[in-house]
Parts: sequence; structure tokens; C-alpha cells
Amino acid sequence: MGERALIRTFRKHAPTHPWLTIGPGQDCAALRWDGRRELVFKIDQVQEGTHFLLKGKERATPYQVGWKAMAKTCSDIAAAGCWPVAAMVAVNLKKGTDEKIALELYRGITACCRKYRFALAGGDLSASKNGLSVVVSLIGEGPRGAAWTRAGAKPGDLLYVTGTLGGSRAHKHLDFAPRLDEARAIRAALGKNVHACIDITDGLSRDLHHLCEESGVGAVIWERLVPLSAAARRDAHPFARALSDGEDFELLLAVSPRARAKMERLKLRCGMTLIGCVARGTSAHVYTREKRFVKLSDVGYEHGTQ
Amino acid sequence: MGERALIRTFRKHAPTHPWLTIGPGQDCAALRWDGRRELVFKIDQVQEGTHFLLKGKERATPYQVGWKAMAKTCSDIAAAGCWPVAAMVAVNLKKGTDEKIALELYRGITACCRKYRFALAGGDLSASKNGLSVVVSLIGEGPRGAAWTRAGAKPGDLLYVTGTLGGSRAHKHLDFAPRLDEARAIRAALGKNVHACIDITDGLSRDLHHLCEESGVGAVIWERLVPLSAAARRDAHPFARALSDGEDFELLLAVSPRARAKMERLKLRCGMTLIGCVARGTSAHVYTREKRFVKLSDVGYEHGTQ
Repeated sequence: MGERALIRTFRKHAPTHPWLTIGPGQDCAALRWDGRRELVFKIDQVQEGTHFLLKGKERATPYQVGWKAMAKTCSDIAAAGCWPVAAMVAVNLKKGTDEKIALELYRGITACCRKYRFALAGGDLSASKNGLSVVVSLIGEGPRGAAWTRAGAKPGDLLYVTGTLGGSRAHKHLDFAPRLDEARAIRAALGKNVHACIDITDGLSRDLHHLCEESGVGAVIWERLVPLSAAARRDAHPFARALSDGEDFELLLAVSPRARAKMERLKLRCGMTLIGCVARGTSAHVYTREKRFVKLSDVGYEHGTQ
Repeated sequence: MGERALIRTFRKHAPTHPWLTIGPGQDCAALRWDGRRELVFKIDQVQEGTHFLLKGKERATPYQVGWKAMAKTCSDIAAAGCWPVAAMVAVNLKKGTDEKIALELYRGITACCRKYRFALAGGDLSASKNGLSVVVSLIGEGPRGAAWTRAGAKPGDLLYVTGTLGGSRAHKHLDFAPRLDEARAIRAALGKNVHACIDITDGLSRDLHHLCEESGVGAVIWERLVPLSAAARRDAHPFARALSDGEDFELLLAVSPRARAKMERLKLRCGMTLIGCVARGTSAHVYTREKRFVKLSDVGYEHGTQ
């Protein structure tokens, strides 16, 4: 049983509650809280050695670690088309860690809270033999019953991505802006025309598969249309970078074709690119530069295995 | 700067939000969510080597680790007089961990959800070089504006504890029931007569200090009245165990003296004991078996330093 099979087992047997409207397997869970606002809920983590290094050429500063932990959880809130309200943070410092490092980490964490105007509502600090880890839990809000999920994409929907993809490990994975403002602008402009959304954390290939699987659809993307980051373009295989590098933290959206004009009028600073469309079936294909339809194999960036 | 000074700095500079009614420094944060229910929010963690061991004589089973992580966060929800609704869990497994261990851990986590009828709404699983850690975030609910905090104790209030104290490391710290049912029964019987509450995680001494500090009051407890666990009574210094052992996960409550009769009619299976009262001033004292008033020094069990 691999990690993904294990996670499927966990989801299948997760206890539920009458108020839980969106459960495990989505970017965020949602609760039907008494009142008019949707309540979304999320946890995410960064672990030394897996999500960042503190030593060597690719090392992150403690500030970047704090920022990344908070911003990647915000990215999930953005993928639900919601806005963060309050965060809780659990930090484990390796015993004997200099307090300057703790303060720097805290600066990174709170910089993200301040930028997106949400509260740091509390936390827990422990010191153990384990390396540095930062776990962030977020409560977010949005219009009632309107959290975006990975399910809901329909054949004929258009697939859009924000920003550019690939090569995030060079720099961006430590220093990205979660697409909260963009998600808010998209929701305001498109309303219910957004049928599904996911944030790209495992690479476009795997995350497109997740979206297709949850929605029970297939998809086609055009290689020529996929926006490549400068870092990816410096690589020998830029498209492979976009497909399988992780931690882009961009949004992939399935949008009703009726909303195409609205989507194109929407000028996002990070850019918003049409890359393909949703199809009947269950498999995802690429229309390559060589004008061939190729099945998009389910490969990507798996945390902790590279 | 020690751990406590660091935490004070963190609290002081924590970004806030208009909906945040109770911020850092309490057992739970609270949000003024649109609607009639109080929303409380909490994070807590267990780290291998600090909160449990997987090897040696005192080792915990993976089931116990999962249970403990969930139950200790529930204990904070109980200390707010609220009830858990949904949990999020972030687990880090040491790379190469057998999946049987992951499944056992999951069984412990979900057993607690089922016992107290709340949802496991999602989670995150990572594999890194770090040891096993389980971080739990909980959303809980209660009557609007009525979450108990550590602040609010008044001179003249009576101090009660649930259960018995001390010696939890022998066994109980892995296998306790969070006092959720008890908190619910107390709230139902006493209403607004509960002025403050804290769960005892750092030992009675330190947690009584926390309550006094947050409420701006002093306190006196009677050594003779403090209920000692069987494990504490086997020790050469049972009262010291009750004062400074950590992880009792019992509730310490400051209750209006008007509610004394109601409190005494309340028959909790775990027991509920009057141990002292709240006083003017800022220091806590013990009336010892030798009939002397002694200042309760601010010592206790500090996680990660023993």
C-alpha cells in the first residue's frame, strides 16, 4: 500500500458530523455553520528536509519557512475561492535552536497574516529532537454553500491556470504569493461559472488528474498553451517541468464556456491562461507541439520521494 | 529569553481580525461567526521524544499516540466549555515507517472522533527524516459569547478540579479521557457561574498561576483537599507530583460561590473536588498539612525540558 492508497483508506473511514458539507479529499473541508457565511477549514505542514532545507545551497531562511508554511495553507483556501480569517500554528523547534531563528520564523508567519489581513489566533510551540516543522491550520470564509472543490468540472468546461508553471524549486516555492486576491477577483467576476478548482502543488499532471478523478471527467490540454515559468524555460525540458515539478501554488480552474468573455476581460497581474478543456471520459490527454494526442501519464512530484 | 518570554512576544505581536473575540494565550481562540453558536479554534501537537516515546519501557503504541494527540486537543475545547465539531490532522511519519503503524495511529485518532461524535474533516501526511509527530487542529462550538477562558476568576470564587492529579506519566498521559462530558454537564448545571477554566497540562502549580495571571487575582489551595491519583500516592512526595507533574488533562475551574450547592449536587463519574478559593492579590498560596501558608512557587512540568 503506497502513500496514496493509505490516504484513500483514511478518507474512506473518516468519522463525519452533520455539519460537515465537504469532507476529506478536497483542498479544504467546509462546515455548515449556523449563519450566512461558508466556513472552510484546512491544515498543512512544512517539514525540514522535505519541504525546505536549512543548510546547503538551496537553504531557506527561517523567515521563508514561516512564510511558506502560512502561504501554502492560504493557497488551499484560495483554491476553495474563500478568504482566510484566522490561523493556528504549531511549531516544533529542534532542541537548542537559537531564539533569533524562532523570531525570524515568526516574522515570516505573521507577514503573511498581515498581507492578507487575517488573525494569528494562537499556536503551540514545542522543542524536541525532531527537526524544524511548522503546521498551519486555517479557518476561512466565503459565500454560503459556494466553496469551490475539485469535483464539479463538466465536459466542455474551459481549463485555466493562473501565473506560470514549473521550476518552482529554484526559488518560487519559498517565496510565492498565494492566489487569494486572484480567487476573489475570479469569484466576483464569474460567480457560479467556476465549476471546480485545485491548487497546483504536485505538478500540473497529477493535479489535473486529481481534478478529473474527483469530477468524473477527462481533459485535454494544449502543450503550446501551458504558460512556462522563466525557471522552467531555462531547463532542457520546460514542459516536463510544468507537468511534474511541484509547489507551483497556482490555481487550475474549470470554468463554464459561457464565462469565457468574462474570464478574458479579467486582467490579473499574475496572468490567467486558457490551457485546455474538460472532456467526457476519465483520462487526460495532451495535444503536443508535434500535433499528437498523448495520454498524460499520472506522474508528478511526490513530496518526500525526491 | 526563555520559551515563555518568547511566547509572550509572539502573543503581543499576533495579527488580529475583527471577528476574533478571544485571541492567543487562552486554551482556545474564539471567533464571532455570523450566527448563534460560538466558534472555538485550537491547535496542539505531540512530538516523538517529547510527548511520547516509541521505544523503551515507557513506549506508547501508535494507537495511543493517535488517541493522545486528539484527546489533548479535545481537552482544550473542554476547558472552553465547548464541544468539538471537526478536526484536521497533520501527521509526519519518519521515512520508511511501516504502514501498519500509520493505520494503528489512524485508529487511535478516529477512535477519539467517534467517541465524542465529531468529524475528521481532513489532514495532511508527510514523510521526512524527522520523527513521528501528530498535530491536531479542532473547531468546536458552544453557546454564543460563552466560551470559558482563563480570565474572569473573581476573589471569592471557589476552585474545583475534576478527577485526580499527579503521576500521569506512569500511564494516564497516554490513555486519558478529555473532560468533554464533564464540561458539558458543568455548563448545563452552572451556566454563567463558571468564571474561568483551564485544563491542567503543566501541573496544578503552573496552571493555577496561569489562571491567576490571566484573571488578575490570587488564590489559596488546601493541600489536604487536593485529590491525588493512585500513581501520585505511590510516590514519596504525592503532593509534589500533583503540583508539578504535567499532562493530567483535568479541568481547574473558578466558580461563583453562589453555585456551590449546584456544584455539589453534580455527580461526575470522575469526581469533582473543591480545592481552594480565589483571593485578591496576585500570588497563589498553599495551606499545608502542617497548617502553614506557603507561597506556591511557579514550578511545574515544562515540555521538552525534562
